[in-house]
Amino acid sequence: MKAMGPIPTGFAASADGSLLIGGTEGLRLIGEHGAPLFVYDRSVIDRQVARFRSAFAGVDLHYAVKANPHPALLAHMGTLVDGFDLASAGELATVEAAGLLRPGLPVSFAGPGKGNPDLTDALDCGVCVHVESDGELDRLLSVARVIGKQPSVGVRVNPPFGLKGSGMKMGGLASQFGVDHEAVPALVRRIVEAGAEWRGLHVYAGSQSLSAEAVIEMQRATVALAGDIAAEVGLTPPEVNLGGGFGIPYFSGDKPLDIDAVGEALAETLAARPAVLRDTRFVIELGRWLVGECGVYLTRVVDRKVSRGKTFLVVDGGLHHMLAASGNFGQLLRRNYPVAVANRFGDEPEEEVTIVGCLCTPLDLLADEVMLPRAEVGDVIAIFCAGAYGLTASPQAFLSQGAAREVLV
Amino acid sequence: MKAMGPIPTGFAASADGSLLIGGTEGLRLIGEHGAPLFVYDRSVIDRQVARFRSAFAGVDLHYAVKANPHPALLAHMGTLVDGFDLASAGELATVEAAGLLRPGLPVSFAGPGKGNPDLTDALDCGVCVHVESDGELDRLLSVARVIGKQPSVGVRVNPPFGLKGSGMKMGGLASQFGVDHEAVPALVRRIVEAGAEWRGLHVYAGSQSLSAEAVIEMQRATVALAGDIAAEVGLTPPEVNLGGGFGIPYFSGDKPLDIDAVGEALAETLAARPAVLRDTRFVIELGRWLVGECGVYLTRVVDRKVSRGKTFLVVDGGLHHMLAASGNFGQLLRRNYPVAVANRFGDEPEEEVTIVGCLCTPLDLLADEVMLPRAEVGDVIAIFCAGAYGLTASPQAFLSQGAAREVLV
Repeated sequence: MKAMGPIPTGFAASADGSLLIGGTEGLRLIGEHGAPLFVYDRSVIDRQVARFRSAFAGVDLHYAVKANPHPALLAHMGTLVDGFDLASAGELATVEAAGLLRPGLPVSFAGPGKGNPDLTDALDCGVCVHVESDGELDRLLSVARVIGKQPSVGVRVNPPFGLKGSGMKMGGLASQFGVDHEAVPALVRRIVEAGAEWRGLHVYAGSQSLSAEAVIEMQRATVALAGDIAAEVGLTPPEVNLGGGFGIPYFSGDKPLDIDAVGEALAETLAARPAVLRDTRFVIELGRWLVGECGVYLTRVVDRKVSRGKTFLVVDGGLHHMLAASGNFGQLLRRNYPVAVANRFGDEPEEEVTIVGCLCTPLDLLADEVMLPRAEVGDVIAIFCAGAYGLTASPQAFLSQGAAREVLV
Repeated sequence: MKAMGPIPTGFAASADGSLLIGGTEGLRLIGEHGAPLFVYDRSVIDRQVARFRSAFAGVDLHYAVKANPHPALLAHMGTLVDGFDLASAGELATVEAAGLLRPGLPVSFAGPGKGNPDLTDALDCGVCVHVESDGELDRLLSVARVIGKQPSVGVRVNPPFGLKGSGMKMGGLASQFGVDHEAVPALVRRIVEAGAEWRGLHVYAGSQSLSAEAVIEMQRATVALAGDIAAEVGLTPPEVNLGGGFGIPYFSGDKPLDIDAVGEALAETLAARPAVLRDTRFVIELGRWLVGECGVYLTRVVDRKVSRGKTFLVVDGGLHHMLAASGNFGQLLRRNYPVAVANRFGDEPEEEVTIVGCLCTPLDLLADEVMLPRAEVGDVIAIFCAGAYGLTASPQAFLSQGAAREVLV
């Protein structure tokens, strides 16, 4: 038997023992929308936003669209957050189509590979471009001149520190992301001298941390770095984006990040911030932490078989929808996501099973040797923590299997 | 400096030093079709098929569509191979749309998660279903009765051995693939007693092996196993699919599989085969080995930057098109695929660069610290060995970046 991750709070069983998502039985949602199905529960998003607001008074909250760009989810997010952070022109188009490009709603666009068409779209839509190199600033200014737009520019900083214990360390090293911190003041001066609007600084030092201590230390270092850069430039950055880095528990033994502790420490840090940052707007951008736990991936059992003493449940979904659960996306070690038999959510575990997807590859392993109530062909498996980097981060065309549906409830 | 894999044979430079693919310059192909672009060179496929025919006289060759289902490539393959092996109803639809479902052309459909709609499609199209469990046979027979079709059925066998040193070992263990070998004779009897057409056995024990010795041993064991099963059943299997397992060199130090040695050994094995297999048709199914080296992924440099002494080339493609080159698909250790500057293919390496994709994630690393001729913004990077498990095995919707084009030349 192998352990699985903790099922996120907020999911309960109906009177007849079936998993409820947003108050509706998973089986009924499949009946309405088909399977395999990603269900996103808006009440979980609301809860996370409320927790953020309670912990981080006075700090703005941006949604990192890359975590989940499902249009209905984005539209709901538009009623909750203070801005959007984009990572591609495609995300810009999605946000625009969702009616979220409103005057006064901050939208920024970062990413190391912005081509001239991407920069043109950003200028046309009036979003803030976070430049990541000298060369990109040149191209942005040149495109802006050609199309006669006034660019709004932030600078993404490659900091001299990283987020410790982070799932993905993204600072402290040579990097494709951002401008090395020591070169930032000169770049800011170039922006200002070119007559562009300088919107501030963006420091993203890592992601998926469950350590409050590590996030606190990163935020302290980020505020100090922003202060140093601002002092050297002699200008107050209108905005400092502190990045994100808030993790969620996926695996056995993972404990939730103590965001109240992070919020308290950040309040202290900001109270003591350098004078040059007095009028700066501080932003935290979150993707996974806001939406990761809202998503449940539902997939039906197609076959049940015993091979050499091991029981396999074969489902109609697989890694083509949920690559991360197979352990093949940035993980060094495969571990089990939280899973359940959706139509027996109230029942005790009674057998050890291995859940595999329908793809004809041994990589398509969704849960290895986990204890569950007995499931038969036609029953529904729920994989939790499927709200962020789920469907869009999966090879959907792989082996030409069926598409997954998505619904916000 | 880190090593990269060997560039496949068959690619040369034009007079002005530009990479030729199928006789055309990569830059010109991008001009015609756009970028990022997957180019599949039919002459490389032809060469591989010719090598197979020369090494394996009297053994049939099937194409495993999952390696690359691009329609033009499939249509070309239809002129070369003796049959197609499918892993989903989606692949069946693609093969049908390409006009390849001809009477007399063997097409089989394997996969652990075939649902009733998949089985219905297979029966409607008259393709052979390779059943993978008792339960699946029950469902197949039941669907066939309902729609009034005569099923054509093979049995996929979970063998008691695996392919040694294989990239993916798929036999010798408890498995979702196939029926444990000791249970196969009873299943074959059930097929025959149900009045269905029994087409034979399918044994797939692993993939991506570069060891002739390991493949030879696997094929010997497969023929012996098929003989034992046939003897126990008392019937000659019309077809025995020996699986594939032929690898191609991707990484530094990889040496090509000696298929002539494999062919010679298989001829000996077949010459000495049990009498019960005298009239059996033997098949080898290949995907990666046939098409892996035919594919080149072309992507343009969008930015060139130096961070803390390290030079980065940022390209307009990335892991959303070519996940395997980033090391995030089934690899335990990230190693460099063969890469080149396509428009300076004839030039000597002159600097160490790290090539990253345009995605806003540190996973998007396409070549780490490799020596190449100097490349500027607008130049084209070629990633080789992109013909199998490339675009379809990648998370194309990830971060809403642009689509890749594909062309067969």
